[in-house]
Amino acid sequence: MARAAERTASAGLGGLVVSPGPDLVYLTGYEAPPLERLTALLIRPGTDPVLLVPELEHPRAEASPAGGRIHVESWPDAGDPYPVVRELLGGPDAPVGVSDRLWASHLLGLQRELSHASFVPASAVLAPLRMRKDDGELGLLAGAAEAADEALRRLTSEVLEGRREEDVAAALAMHLTGAGHDTAAFTIVGSGPNGASPHHHAGEREIRDGDCVVLDFGGSLGGYFSDLTRTVAVGAPSDHIREVHGIVHRAQAAAFQAVAPGVAAQEVDRAARSVIEQAGYGPDFIHRTGHGIGLEEHEPPYIVEGNATPLQVGNTFSIEPGIYLAGRFGVRIEDIVVVTETGARSLNQAPRELVSVA
Amino acid sequence: MARAAERTASAGLGGLVVSPGPDLVYLTGYEAPPLERLTALLIRPGTDPVLLVPELEHPRAEASPAGGRIHVESWPDAGDPYPVVRELLGGPDAPVGVSDRLWASHLLGLQRELSHASFVPASAVLAPLRMRKDDGELGLLAGAAEAADEALRRLTSEVLEGRREEDVAAALAMHLTGAGHDTAAFTIVGSGPNGASPHHHAGEREIRDGDCVVLDFGGSLGGYFSDLTRTVAVGAPSDHIREVHGIVHRAQAAAFQAVAPGVAAQEVDRAARSVIEQAGYGPDFIHRTGHGIGLEEHEPPYIVEGNATPLQVGNTFSIEPGIYLAGRFGVRIEDIVVVTETGARSLNQAPRELVSVA
Repeated sequence: MARAAERTASAGLGGLVVSPGPDLVYLTGYEAPPLERLTALLIRPGTDPVLLVPELEHPRAEASPAGGRIHVESWPDAGDPYPVVRELLGGPDAPVGVSDRLWASHLLGLQRELSHASFVPASAVLAPLRMRKDDGELGLLAGAAEAADEALRRLTSEVLEGRREEDVAAALAMHLTGAGHDTAAFTIVGSGPNGASPHHHAGEREIRDGDCVVLDFGGSLGGYFSDLTRTVAVGAPSDHIREVHGIVHRAQAAAFQAVAPGVAAQEVDRAARSVIEQAGYGPDFIHRTGHGIGLEEHEPPYIVEGNATPLQVGNTFSIEPGIYLAGRFGVRIEDIVVVTETGARSLNQAPRELVSVA
Repeated sequence: MARAAERTASAGLGGLVVSPGPDLVYLTGYEAPPLERLTALLIRPGTDPVLLVPELEHPRAEASPAGGRIHVESWPDAGDPYPVVRELLGGPDAPVGVSDRLWASHLLGLQRELSHASFVPASAVLAPLRMRKDDGELGLLAGAAEAADEALRRLTSEVLEGRREEDVAAALAMHLTGAGHDTAAFTIVGSGPNGASPHHHAGEREIRDGDCVVLDFGGSLGGYFSDLTRTVAVGAPSDHIREVHGIVHRAQAAAFQAVAPGVAAQEVDRAARSVIEQAGYGPDFIHRTGHGIGLEEHEPPYIVEGNATPLQVGNTFSIEPGIYLAGRFGVRIEDIVVVTETGARSLNQAPRELVSVA
């Protein structure tokens, strides 16, 4: 919190409005639901932070990890919280940072009340802090990644042929918690032509012999996420599936090799993309190469063309190139990696070669 | 969607930006996760709506209930979606409505790009539509309420004494899904002095003989929520618990009696509050009397002082007065009700009298 206040001041901001969600958990450990009633941690350069909560949640906030460490103020249900924010922030004319996930209804309330201030995303201040994971965070991310590897191992020891995607997705969710996650967060099962939809919603399609199946799933452990993708063949894969899988595998390895401290995030994207482009599948790689991961499934740094941010030791992100052939199949391979002094270390160890399952 | 466009025009708005979440589900049935990549339904008076999605989610959107009915446009990962929104909305100078839950980062992106427009919450247009539930919605809300009643029945047939709050909360979550919900959403278990914290986070406290226990829980069914609170006594309740429970019970009944079409929402709050004030506990009723419920756990109409909105047939909301005595105990009684031609009908049937459990 002290570093957040320093950065708020050095960025020339008049304050930060931190809303329930990952920013608030990161700074205080307080897990409050985002609701229509405003809860906000106010970071104020030059003075102590204050946590503003709805009156009925005052005892809950005091009983949370924030209680005792941060002064808690409250506002009543029949009242208006936005003038309270203005007073607590000292009505700054300087720009105010707001959590990226703050609800628009709350931002509009703040803009009405702090009519002289401009507003910017708080990630300008908080992302540099949150991007650099400490050992405790890396331990949780590694534990989540290990549990994801184990969930995949359990799933691929089952028979997939003849089952519906939605049934496989349900089994995957069970394996995610069974292997050690607190919660299952998402389970993409894209079989056959459905694999060409990168974020396919698992449905009623029955998995058949010869299918290529994209399995992309994750859960959370101590608040930190896993995110693993493997593409498996049901029975013997066709030559085309083998070829495309091989290209994606090489692209994924090239991106991994490109990671080092000081390298621009977009260079990692380019490393994967150039392998796929050279193989003639450039137009079929229809998304960025990866995203940061931590208290959010997606967070900075984004591994995308246009992001020149230099990678730093302790950054964690996905490397997940893919090729999507409409009406036929898709292939994606994804690991979570951490930037080290010398390059990258993968938190996932599941085999990256094309695996044939029953 | 046609009615939303009409209301957008008659409210003098240049368009609506509807983000993933309840607004998007209500208008299109498309369940997309809110993410850093912008997904938005654009309602445009005088022309057809368009659904803007990230390129990699184009096939998913087309396969959703929105596909085929709404034109889908996409933007690529290395691109910027906000200029696309400006073009698709026709760069209006008129105010633009944005979903209350749109992320602040997206609203700031839109404000940068549509620098001549002002922005207002889309609930100004959408709340009047969403507040008036149709028969299908009422059926789901009634089914969810029935499942909540059943979950309570199952829990109160168990022994609570000697168990931790968090264990009882886990059992309640299991009963919520076991009794018919798709998912358990929240489980407040506030025993003894913890009951004085209305949104207490169930913890390690062991429930004892003589405790008063606030049980406030809900789940979702077909996207629609339940929300039920009962306060039970473990063993024989003290005279003080009996007295306070009796007052809250009378306040809850008074609020129920006050409901009718055309009555201002705040009158229902006043009806409950005056019973509690007359009994001398006014300062201990530290929240509004209720909130609307539907695709969100909390939504308009809010039953709170200052809300003069007249109730309409088909509105659904909670009636949940409470009394909270710091360091001692709390009592809350909550039902979900629907406004009818002649008054109110409760969707919950669980007994409201003080029940003693083992």
